[in-house]
Amino acid sequence: METRTKDKEVEDLLLCAQEARVRAYTPYSKFRVGAALLTEDGSLVPGCNVENISFGLTICAERNAIARAVGEGHRTFKAIGVVADMKDKFVTPCGACRQVIVEFSVDCEVYLGRPDGAYVKTTIDKLLPDAFTPHVANLESLTK
Amino acid sequence: METRTKDKEVEDLLLCAQEARVRAYTPYSKFRVGAALLTEDGSLVPGCNVENISFGLTICAERNAIARAVGEGHRTFKAIGVVADMKDKFVTPCGACRQVIVEFSVDCEVYLGRPDGAYVKTTIDKLLPDAFTPHVANLESLTK
Amino acid sequence: METRTKDKEVEDLLLCAQEARVRAYTPYSKFRVGAALLTEDGSLVPGCNVENISFGLTICAERNAIARAVGEGHRTFKAIGVVADMKDKFVTPCGACRQVIVEFSVDCEVYLGRPDGAYVKTTIDKLLPDAFTPHVANLESLTK
Amino acid sequence: METRTKDKEVEDLLLCAQEARVRAYTPYSKFRVGAALLTEDGSLVPGCNVENISFGLTICAERNAIARAVGEGHRTFKAIGVVADMKDKFVTPCGACRQVIVEFSVDCEVYLGRPDGAYVKTTIDKLLPDAFTPHVANLESLTK
Ligand SMILES: [Zn+2]
Ligand SMILES: [Zn+2]
Ligand SMILES: [Zn+2]
Ligand SMILES: [Zn+2]
Repeated sequence: METRTKDKEVEDLLLCAQEARVRAYTPYSKFRVGAALLTEDGSLVPGCNVENISFGLTICAERNAIARAVGEGHRTFKAIGVVADMKDKFVTPCGACRQVIVEFSVDCEVYLGRPDGAYVKTTIDKLLPDAFTPHVANLESLTK
Repeated sequence: METRTKDKEVEDLLLCAQEARVRAYTPYSKFRVGAALLTEDGSLVPGCNVENISFGLTICAERNAIARAVGEGHRTFKAIGVVADMKDKFVTPCGACRQVIVEFSVDCEVYLGRPDGAYVKTTIDKLLPDAFTPHVANLESLTK
Repeated sequence: METRTKDKEVEDLLLCAQEARVRAYTPYSKFRVGAALLTEDGSLVPGCNVENISFGLTICAERNAIARAVGEGHRTFKAIGVVADMKDKFVTPCGACRQVIVEFSVDCEVYLGRPDGAYVKTTIDKLLPDAFTPHVANLESLTK
Repeated sequence: METRTKDKEVEDLLLCAQEARVRAYTPYSKFRVGAALLTEDGSLVPGCNVENISFGLTICAERNAIARAVGEGHRTFKAIGVVADMKDKFVTPCGACRQVIVEFSVDCEVYLGRPDGAYVKTTIDKLLPDAFTPHVANLESLTK
């Protein structure tokens, strides 16, 4: 697959996510995650996970970044980067975050990174196929 | 793909979902959805969507069914059926519901139905690939 | 304060909540909570908390009971009972659950119980004053 | 009640909330809300509500502001301002937002404003009495 995002942009994106991760509020899980959005106009918007004693009110790093970005006037995202501390694995966004990404950008690139700098690339379309979107996705792939 | 669920079971599942839909509480969206779970032991557990004036506290039909099923002692689901009133389309579970399904059953079958009886089949594995699960999914598909 | 709910009803309510608690799915917090609703027609509807690896998708016992009750056709609740295992304290519903209770019944009684049978009584009106309700609460108390 | 927050600070807080409101993403409710936090060090952090086609993934303005503030390194809030467009009423935070406020600051002041500049003051302690907090609130008020 062709990548629209340049190497340097990905590097900056994941660095932004990694720096955001430091400020995660995770007294209950101790599992810190950082995220960063690359907006249409080239801005970077960070987010970290913020937990709550009532677990259901926890917000993930990805959704924190998106809520903030919308608050700053952005509505379209070229890419999102996510960094979590997994030794030999890459953490993917949870289903809730995938749904929130797709609300704004059905063709968002997703970069999954580790603190050691390694990363893999995927897309929101791959991570949430046949999404329940504002335009109600066509479901052709289901019948293949 | 081979189907483990018998035709009669699917029919009953979608009928249960359709009946559940009638009791949806949707004063804000008017969009009623019904769901039903087929548990490991062959029980059917229904759920409908329940909205809230604070939209973020809305629960989807699928998650209602799962929360209820767990409360009744079930932990593994063979299939989930979802029925919504779309003329020519099938509604898929949102990302949040996909995440909650996969918490319990990574190989759950998903049946998307319409009031007219038509339906398509898919699986949670297809709808939420590389899921962020308790076992943290392997991400092999990302690098293919 | 005058109690509309009879002693025997409260006993049954809290027993139902306590039994529901056993089926809580809490691999992440180990904090099990049970709830039960007393509906307008005298039915009891149980619920337990159901957690998720993505903490934000966790549902509390109270909201599980309400979602289930709505799915069973109930829309008005006389009382809700909540039981958690605190040695010397009573657990109150979180803010999210208070909001969901008030969506349906602005004068719901709330019974907070412990496994040893002790309980205290309060009301949703006390627990969520000046609530953001469908009717948008009057805010007189704010200016007192 | 004694106010720790100066008039000028409240004015700035509500102005920040009002400006944030403009960027709300509310295609489903059309109900735009803006919020702003006054942090311990005197910073202002804005937030708006961001809805989702799956209503349960909607985030309120207040929680958007808090998640962003935590991401910027803040952990204690002196006050929160909320502005919504109600002709003759003031909108209070929903229960979910009250719970998230109390996670960080049990004595946060809450200012409810309108676009015309009018406002009333309350506190999180009044809005969420006997809160289920990390320290599990004492429940003395229940037995009064
Ligand atoms: Zn997430
Ligand atoms: Zn859903
Ligand atoms: Zn709760
Ligand atoms: Zn709220």
